[in-house]
This record gives sequence, C-alpha cells and structure tokens, in this order.
Amino acid sequence: MKFVRYKDKNQVFQGVLEKDKIIQISGDPYSNWEKTSGVHLRSEVKLLAPILPNQIIGIGANYVASEEELPSDPVQHPVFFFKPVSSVIGPDENIVIPEQVENVKFEAELAVVIGKEIKQLQPEDPVEPYVFGYTIANDVTAPVMFHPDGHWTIGKAFDTFTPIGPIVETNLDLNKIRIEATVGGVEKQNSPTHLMIVTIEEMIRYLSHVMTLQPGDVILTGSPVGAEMVGGNIMVECTIEGIGTLRNETKVSY
Amino acid sequence: MKFVRYKDKNQVFQGVLEKDKIIQISGDPYSNWEKTSGVHLRSEVKLLAPILPNQIIGIGANYVASEEELPSDPVQHPVFFFKPVSSVIGPDENIVIPEQVENVKFEAELAVVIGKEIKQLQPEDPVEPYVFGYTIANDVTAPVMFHPDGHWTIGKAFDTFTPIGPIVETNLDLNKIRIEATVGGVEKQNSPTHLMIVTIEEMIRYLSHVMTLQPGDVILTGSPVGAEMVGGNIMVECTIEGIGTLRNETKVSY
Repeated sequence: MKFVRYKDKNQVFQGVLEKDKIIQISGDPYSNWEKTSGVHLRSEVKLLAPILPNQIIGIGANYVASEEELPSDPVQHPVFFFKPVSSVIGPDENIVIPEQVENVKFEAELAVVIGKEIKQLQPEDPVEPYVFGYTIANDVTAPVMFHPDGHWTIGKAFDTFTPIGPIVETNLDLNKIRIEATVGGVEKQNSPTHLMIVTIEEMIRYLSHVMTLQPGDVILTGSPVGAEMVGGNIMVECTIEGIGTLRNETKVSY
Repeated sequence: MKFVRYKDKNQVFQGVLEKDKIIQISGDPYSNWEKTSGVHLRSEVKLLAPILPNQIIGIGANYVASEEELPSDPVQHPVFFFKPVSSVIGPDENIVIPEQVENVKFEAELAVVIGKEIKQLQPEDPVEPYVFGYTIANDVTAPVMFHPDGHWTIGKAFDTFTPIGPIVETNLDLNKIRIEATVGGVEKQNSPTHLMIVTIEEMIRYLSHVMTLQPGDVILTGSPVGAEMVGGNIMVECTIEGIGTLRNETKVSY
C-alpha cells in the first residue's frame, strides 16, 4: 500500500496511491481507515509530506563504504539525535538555507514509520508488526551550527531541514533496495542498505528500551557515503526504488 | 489562570483551577476555550501533566551560583537539546530508573509553554504575547547514557524522564520567583531565576530564528546549581512559588 497526503483546492486529504490515481481515505492510517468514494489523479494534486511525524529520531554515522568495513561487533554507542517536527517539508518544497549558514549538507536516508506502540521489545518479539511503512528522508544539516561540545541539535533543527516523501510504502523488500542521491543531476550517493552499521531492527530494539515508540514516530536510518555540502538553487533528488524520488531544491533565505 | 489536566473516573479533562475547585473547560487552551458547567474538587481528582507538549526543547548549563559569575557577553553557543514527548509524566507519578543505569540526576526547572506560533521574531517584537504560561519541569537525566562524543540524546530520552506540572500558570512574575528542589526532604536547589545565563527572552528569540515554535512547545530553561544524582525510592520535590510543587518519587525498574 502506498500512503500519501495531498492538497487539492486548498484542502488536505489522505489517500492511497494506485498507479496514477489516488483513492481518498478517511480515518487513522495507523489503526483504522477506509477508502472513500473520492478519487484524484496524482498529476492533478500537490503531494505533501506523506505523514505528519509524531517525533523524528535520527542515527548518525551509520553507513560504511563497503562490506569489508562493516564492524564485526555490535556498535556500543550508536549516536541518536532528535529533529523537531517543525523541520518537515514535503516533496518539491524548497530546502531553505538559513541566514546563519552558507551551505548545508544533504543526506538521503531510508525512513521507517512506526505504526504501533513499542515498549521494551523482547528478543523473541519480531520488529516487523510494529513498522507501518517506509519513506525517503533528506536529513539536511548545517554542520557549522553544531555545538563545539558535540551537540548536533541546532544544526539539524532548522525549518525545511527534513524533507520526507513522496509516499509511505508499506511493502518494501529491504534486501533489494538502494539509497541514491543526485545533486544537480550528478550522482552523489548510491548504496545498498546492507552497508548500514546498526540495522533497522537493532535500532528499533535499542530505542524501545529507552523510550516508548509511538505510531507516527519516524526513524531516519542514516545516510550512505557521499553526502556533501550544497549551496543555494540546486536540485537534490533522493531515490529509493519502490518508494520513488524525493525532489527538493535549495534556496537561500538571504 | 491556572490550567490543569486531570482524570476523574478514568476520563481525562482539562480545566482551570480556582482555589480548591477545578472548573472543567472545553476547546483548545491555546486559542479558543470556554468554561463548562462541570466542577470538580481538586482533592478528589488525579492531576495529570498539565499539557501534552508538542515538542520539548531544553537548554544545558544555564545557571551560575551567584550574580558575580554571570557572563558580561552574550553566550555564543547555547547548548540546546530535545527530549521526546514520550518522556513526559505528571505530578505524583514515578520517575523510573531504567535497567541500564544505577541512578539519575534530577534537575528542577522553570518550563515555558509556547501559546502562539513564533517564527523569526524581530528585535522590536515583544516575546510575552507568544508565551502561554509557565510550569515546573524536572529534567531527569542519566549522564551515564550520554554518548562519548557529547550527544545527550539517549541520556535524556527515557520514559518518565520529564515530569511536568502540577499546573500551567499564565500569570507569573518572573522577577520574583525561585527554583527550589528537595530530595527526601533535604534542600538541594534554591535559586532566583535571574541567575540564568541565557534569559527566557533570549532563548525564545534565538530558537525562533532556527525553528518555528508552535503552541504546546515547551522550553526547559535550565536548572540551578545543586542538581545531584539520586537512586531509587526517594521523593524529589521541585517547587516554584505561584506554580506549586511537582512531586515525583524515583523507582528502580529492576
């Protein structure tokens, strides 16, 4: 199932995408929803961020360049961070480079959307039933705003710094996908997800022993090698086959 | 006005506290609400966290011990961090010390609740109209879970690590208040708020140039000198005159 949010004549709808049509739905996508009689052509509406996240949790430095570099032991201290929900934008919206910085780093990522509350997952409990689906995120970052003591908070918190979309795909074969990104049409990232250091399952298990994960929580699972600084007026395209392409152009605010 | 959330016979209500009575309200406290005919005695209901935060933003290392130590120049790099909304508990609930740690640090703080969207506040714009009110927070922390590279995320993210309450007071004279905390009845913190390094106004102005602050965003404004590590089964009481006392007992989970 391919979930979308979209705007038509200034009204916001939720729907499921079926080929070139969007079937409008009502209810809560995480628990109880149904199709309505409303149908739109995808080409005639504006897609929005496919969900409004409840919280956004990211992981840092989570990819290696090749299989040989994967560590043999589990990571002792994965680096997690939060991004504010106010930083979310949808497909085709501008990433705004704030007045305080000259350029920003793009980071194409697979994003996991939690669908059911998870608390202290036991080793015998599978993770899959708690995952609602997957989308693409661009974890935009202004490293110059990182705190000298190591806190990333502000450098990742600016408005427009978390593009997500274009859809949430509930059926995705994680073994077959690649994270790809181009900047101004030039390939910068292209990596299979098995080059992740901490796996999605490990992340969810770890986090579930810290905090109760809730429907709508979004986990950004890290960005492959190749993320770079970009300036204004350039198109960043993040692609995962099966989900689509998330396109956002940068724009300076000053 | 003193806003509360409370539970009576397993139903959750919002209300305003007037002496020993709570007048039930309907609507959105940030924009449009009215009193209903429902009245409860405060002593007969269970107070909950007075609001469900939209986001929680904290500032680190924001108090000095005496006026002479206040820096003469503005702080270049205030340390901000996010706490997940899943960490919130209300008055009289237990702070649960997780299996991963032996003891936790309590930090009594004045918490500011944003009432109106704020984006890029201009120097001539006053801050006050955007503040809904004030409550008490205990920014519970497990320093042992801080990442060696400086990230505080996980150490502040555990369930029950953000007690808030007992009320949100919309009228508070910030020049007259003190932050006080006792542990097991013994005074540990007692400081006027003018020993804050970055003022509330400076924090809100700074953050408004990073992210759009939204109604229900809660800013934890830092904890005075005296915060300490505590183990299980001890009562932590955080008091600000005009708001009340936020009581939470620690409990080990193992």
